[in-house]
Amino acid sequence: MAEELLGNVLVGQSGGPTAVINSSIEGVVAEALNHDCIEEIYGTLNGVLGILNEDFIDLASESQQTIRALRSTPGAALGTCRYKLKKQEDYERVLEVFKAQNIRYFFYAGGNDSQDTADKISKLAQEQGYELRVIGIPKTIDNDLPVTDHCPGYGSVIKHVATTVRQMACDHEAMGQGDLVSILEVMGRNAGWIAAGASLAKRRDHPHDPPHIILLPEVAFSAEKFIADVQRVLKREKHCFVVVGEGLIDADGNYVAAAEATDAFGHAQLGGAAEFLQGLVEANIPAVKARTAKLGIAQRAAVTNGSKTDADEAFLAGQAAVLAAINGETDKMVTLLRGEADHYTVETGLAPLADIANGVKKLPKEWINEDGISMNYQFVRFATPLIQGETAVPHENGLPVFAKLDKVRVQRQLESYEL
Amino acid sequence: MAEELLGNVLVGQSGGPTAVINSSIEGVVAEALNHDCIEEIYGTLNGVLGILNEDFIDLASESQQTIRALRSTPGAALGTCRYKLKKQEDYERVLEVFKAQNIRYFFYAGGNDSQDTADKISKLAQEQGYELRVIGIPKTIDNDLPVTDHCPGYGSVIKHVATTVRQMACDHEAMGQGDLVSILEVMGRNAGWIAAGASLAKRRDHPHDPPHIILLPEVAFSAEKFIADVQRVLKREKHCFVVVGEGLIDADGNYVAAAEATDAFGHAQLGGAAEFLQGLVEANIPAVKARTAKLGIAQRAAVTNGSKTDADEAFLAGQAAVLAAINGETDKMVTLLRGEADHYTVETGLAPLADIANGVKKLPKEWINEDGISMNYQFVRFATPLIQGETAVPHENGLPVFAKLDKVRVQRQLESYEL
Repeated sequence: MAEELLGNVLVGQSGGPTAVINSSIEGVVAEALNHDCIEEIYGTLNGVLGILNEDFIDLASESQQTIRALRSTPGAALGTCRYKLKKQEDYERVLEVFKAQNIRYFFYAGGNDSQDTADKISKLAQEQGYELRVIGIPKTIDNDLPVTDHCPGYGSVIKHVATTVRQMACDHEAMGQGDLVSILEVMGRNAGWIAAGASLAKRRDHPHDPPHIILLPEVAFSAEKFIADVQRVLKREKHCFVVVGEGLIDADGNYVAAAEATDAFGHAQLGGAAEFLQGLVEANIPAVKARTAKLGIAQRAAVTNGSKTDADEAFLAGQAAVLAAINGETDKMVTLLRGEADHYTVETGLAPLADIANGVKKLPKEWINEDGISMNYQFVRFATPLIQGETAVPHENGLPVFAKLDKVRVQRQLESYEL
Repeated sequence: MAEELLGNVLVGQSGGPTAVINSSIEGVVAEALNHDCIEEIYGTLNGVLGILNEDFIDLASESQQTIRALRSTPGAALGTCRYKLKKQEDYERVLEVFKAQNIRYFFYAGGNDSQDTADKISKLAQEQGYELRVIGIPKTIDNDLPVTDHCPGYGSVIKHVATTVRQMACDHEAMGQGDLVSILEVMGRNAGWIAAGASLAKRRDHPHDPPHIILLPEVAFSAEKFIADVQRVLKREKHCFVVVGEGLIDADGNYVAAAEATDAFGHAQLGGAAEFLQGLVEANIPAVKARTAKLGIAQRAAVTNGSKTDADEAFLAGQAAVLAAINGETDKMVTLLRGEADHYTVETGLAPLADIANGVKKLPKEWINEDGISMNYQFVRFATPLIQGETAVPHENGLPVFAKLDKVRVQRQLESYEL
């Protein structure tokens, strides 16, 4: 047993929300309440921004009902940010605030960039001899964090995408006469994990089920091959269902449909892949109608098509973060480890934040079929367990109701800080 | 009691599918089985196309399980079409096929154009002295059929749209810092019924809840007012949530973002309203990021966010069509009549097909607030009952499973027909 460290918990959320990132907060709060060495359980509003601004709320004062409802609430209940700590003063400020609020446990749910931030905060605390235990909680619909088997948030987004494909396919099957191409644009900047998840819509032993063409950033895009693939499918089927990630890349490594803007971390902002393909189809295949849909933010907020397995694992990751810190661990991220058994089991592990930060796990090329547009059984075996079970979402007056935190503010101890 | 008419039933589906058009088929089959004067229950594949081609299936031979599963199956299980009967020969062929297959009851689920087709078939049969009872079943997500209080299909699409808005809003609330504009494009060509339905996402007594701006074809679009509205919302809220129908119309009555193509009925094919608004926002409001999502076909197939009330009413409409025909009615469409009581009740009525065909029910202007971008209590009172209850959708292996008809073909009696 590690030496007991008395102090307060701070938990934050960062980056794009998922359908289950709030389940991790629920896990942190539920577990933190079990440990006497934890005095207060605070949440930072909008991630590191809330830390710089000393903008904390008292999570222990929220009702149990509200905390429990986080399991089925999309978005990030604490608010999130894409703000990157820029200068040494920012990091110094973080520690100053932690000291002022006696934060001894810091849990940060986020993706690569957020784990990098957590790592830097942890290292600075060590340099300054301030005892702080920092544990990252994996979160990303992109499923691109290294080390962990998969990321909370991924199961729900692919369940929504595969559900949407299966539902739209019923419509296309009714409408198509060999002349309908449907293009569904999904998220995924650096890796085709989300687009690949659409393949789960195929029923077992029905390889010709939609989606017929999955375009992944891992496979260089060729307009000629794409048109030939579409024509081949249209000969065979009433419609051709295409799923495309936003990060479609050509043979020269350039984005096919990139806008010029970049985000705060310098990543290219993408979009428009579906319209690009629509144009290609209509220009090259006569008498064919191409329709587009773009799930946008809806796909990562779709808790009504959410995976219970995913929500439960996000909760587990939050719990495991607290337990690890109590046990003296720091500067690590919780990982999910898949059991070796035939039936799916998962337990949590830990990996150094430095191994996670800024790493990107690509979709294994050997999980893509030779045709370059479909996934093989290895992917299906990997992904199927992640979408099992349906998140129970309470409805009132015909619509889902979501947790709203009371957000009782913690009193500030410091002067305000110039961002 | 009407004179008993012995013969076969033919039921067909036409136009764009909805989440509940299959429930109407279930209603027709369930009711038809109760009546001895009905000998066979056939379905036509792809609407009038299936009639011209004498392409019928035997619905009575489908398993009860399959027929029951239609209640939660999107798309149109019989297939649908946008084919318009063009020439007198087409109509003659229809009657020829009906006579050859002894079709005495024809039920057609569809929108305006489909009811027009049904009307013409009915009138020709009367002219020729062929005893045929034709009853239309209302179907359209657009909710634009006259006479009927509302249309099966509408409740489910607005439930999905409002659910999506509420879910996305959780995400935007977490991400926005007064700099995020989200634009959700929904369907609706001639009327803003679907976009208006997004207003149900607002909680009672929370007028500032998303969506903040609803753009309707009923209100002339002004770019200046739109930008001013967005800026006003961004000052007040963390994000500005815009819902736009595809049929956005400027002060001169022109579509704001119309493509050049027209469909088989000569309607303009629309799309791109969201990108148009995104461009406007980003060009006119500095440092604001606009994101788009376009629900496309997904919105009318989203049975996992479907309304139980809507599915039950679609079933009821199918049942009522059979009962009306048995009672000697013809050349009518089933309508839904809302009770006068405070609590919502519905019963069915009948209206002449000629009154329905090619009519368009506009969203009442007096249901739109003076600001031109939100709906008042009259709309909310109208629409709220239609989204009550959640369609139970069976899941298997993490995904919804849908009915697949066996489609046992009925033997053709005639030579094939040149379309």
